[in-house]
Amino acid sequence: MSILVVGTVAFDSIETPSGSAERVLGGSASYFAMGASFFAPVRIVGVVGKDFPEEYIDLFQRRNIDLQGLRRESGDTFHWRGRYHEDLNVRDTVELHLNVLAGFVPRLPEAYRDAEYVFLGNIDPEMQLEVLSQLRCFRMVACDTMDHWIHNSLPALRKVLGKIEMLVVNDSEARLLSGETNIVRAARAILKMGPKTVLIKRGEYGVLQFSESAVFAVPAYPLEEVFDPTGAGDSFAGGFLGQLARSANAGEGAARRAIVYGSVVASFTVEDFGLKRLGSLSMEEIEERYRRFVALTDFHS
Amino acid sequence: MSILVVGTVAFDSIETPSGSAERVLGGSASYFAMGASFFAPVRIVGVVGKDFPEEYIDLFQRRNIDLQGLRRESGDTFHWRGRYHEDLNVRDTVELHLNVLAGFVPRLPEAYRDAEYVFLGNIDPEMQLEVLSQLRCFRMVACDTMDHWIHNSLPALRKVLGKIEMLVVNDSEARLLSGETNIVRAARAILKMGPKTVLIKRGEYGVLQFSESAVFAVPAYPLEEVFDPTGAGDSFAGGFLGQLARSANAGEGAARRAIVYGSVVASFTVEDFGLKRLGSLSMEEIEERYRRFVALTDFHS
Repeated sequence: MSILVVGTVAFDSIETPSGSAERVLGGSASYFAMGASFFAPVRIVGVVGKDFPEEYIDLFQRRNIDLQGLRRESGDTFHWRGRYHEDLNVRDTVELHLNVLAGFVPRLPEAYRDAEYVFLGNIDPEMQLEVLSQLRCFRMVACDTMDHWIHNSLPALRKVLGKIEMLVVNDSEARLLSGETNIVRAARAILKMGPKTVLIKRGEYGVLQFSESAVFAVPAYPLEEVFDPTGAGDSFAGGFLGQLARSANAGEGAARRAIVYGSVVASFTVEDFGLKRLGSLSMEEIEERYRRFVALTDFHS
Repeated sequence: MSILVVGTVAFDSIETPSGSAERVLGGSASYFAMGASFFAPVRIVGVVGKDFPEEYIDLFQRRNIDLQGLRRESGDTFHWRGRYHEDLNVRDTVELHLNVLAGFVPRLPEAYRDAEYVFLGNIDPEMQLEVLSQLRCFRMVACDTMDHWIHNSLPALRKVLGKIEMLVVNDSEARLLSGETNIVRAARAILKMGPKTVLIKRGEYGVLQFSESAVFAVPAYPLEEVFDPTGAGDSFAGGFLGQLARSANAGEGAARRAIVYGSVVASFTVEDFGLKRLGSLSMEEIEERYRRFVALTDFHS
């Protein structure tokens, strides 16, 4: 089962209370693809500039990520600069240079149009619609978004929500999109907009999954040190869809275990800057932490 | 197995975004005792004034709570007035009248001095030490505290921590007491102060339990409506120690299930103002929600 991700491939410059990193590989598609690559073959659709270095291409290729859909345009790669507060749940965007991302229209290579699992990363909902229109068939589409699109592109976003199976957002995005303060009501309101499932990411507090018939709640893996929260949400989504694709099981229990795999991947992501930890991670480490996660949460036996 | 609680019995005047309540029964000992009373016999040590009404005495007695240790002094009952923000995790104390609580020295009736499970509610650590000195023997002592005592009575509080098995605090109290921002490091630092177990309450995000050898994380029961968060933490502690006493099992699995029972009790507490919901609650409802809690969190099967 292969996975298609559409999103940003970026340079991130990051400052956290633990240190800083300059122009490291980032972006929603990068974090998602790296997280998913441990579980299933991944294909990226995105754009980079002429300044995008070979070492990052190599990093993707070492993880067998298919880059046929990653276009290289003249101009510079999308660059984000952010600063985290002492409270790592709060961050400021210091600089944002769209560069080659401005005017980018995703174009799926012919081989990508029969997708199985699709993740529409956090990009303009118009671009997400464009991708959906190019897919011939698919098994499941999940989608992310952010406050900027909820404020400025709501009609397009609502169209996207009418076409997808799953929305993956954080709690403040869920509240903003639904207009509900209470998170359970927020999720129920979003389910009425189209998705069959809503996954709500709560950072260090874990994840809530809502569907018509069930709710699943899982804490995050407690860490003694969080170096850099960047990409935690996207690598969570990658591990989650990756495990769904690996298990090829559409049942509720399989989806719950996939959420835990996603949480495990995210817990590694934040242990170092950018994609450094995921770059050196092994499937054995993921399975080992999954077992620890079971021990952490089990009260049933 | 009986449970002894020492703490406040108060009038609470509460304003939340959902409404308000004037001079309703509150205080740490009241919430704890009501929560624990579903599981095991409970004895209260505390003080009220001449203005304390019969209907509240009746409420305790209907739940078979032993009031031999509840002294009635001339003067008025302790009164707290608080206002919650739209974000229910934030509240302001608007008025605080200690009244008969000022100068109160807890005196354990003879029959209480051989206690089994003891909860030292959030009162002056000097009073907590006084209670400990009057106990002839006990099986397990848990203790709560708050920012006020951490700032103003740290030496006495450190003495308490050296004598008890378990500290039950919220995350900001754990950070303040330990001087650590990261919650895992905060808990590890507190374990070094004496307690064998630290329970960290995270409100709508659930509970973390730390001991030398294990960590347990559990989410909170998601609710569509939270009317009044007052007493959630104390009734959690009541349900937790109550279930520990009921099971009379000192194993790790039993402690984890007791934490879930505590979370279930707290989830009922916040569904209405003050002790209204606990006053009408039945053990069948608790068991039913416990089963829902299992369904909410289970990904192991």
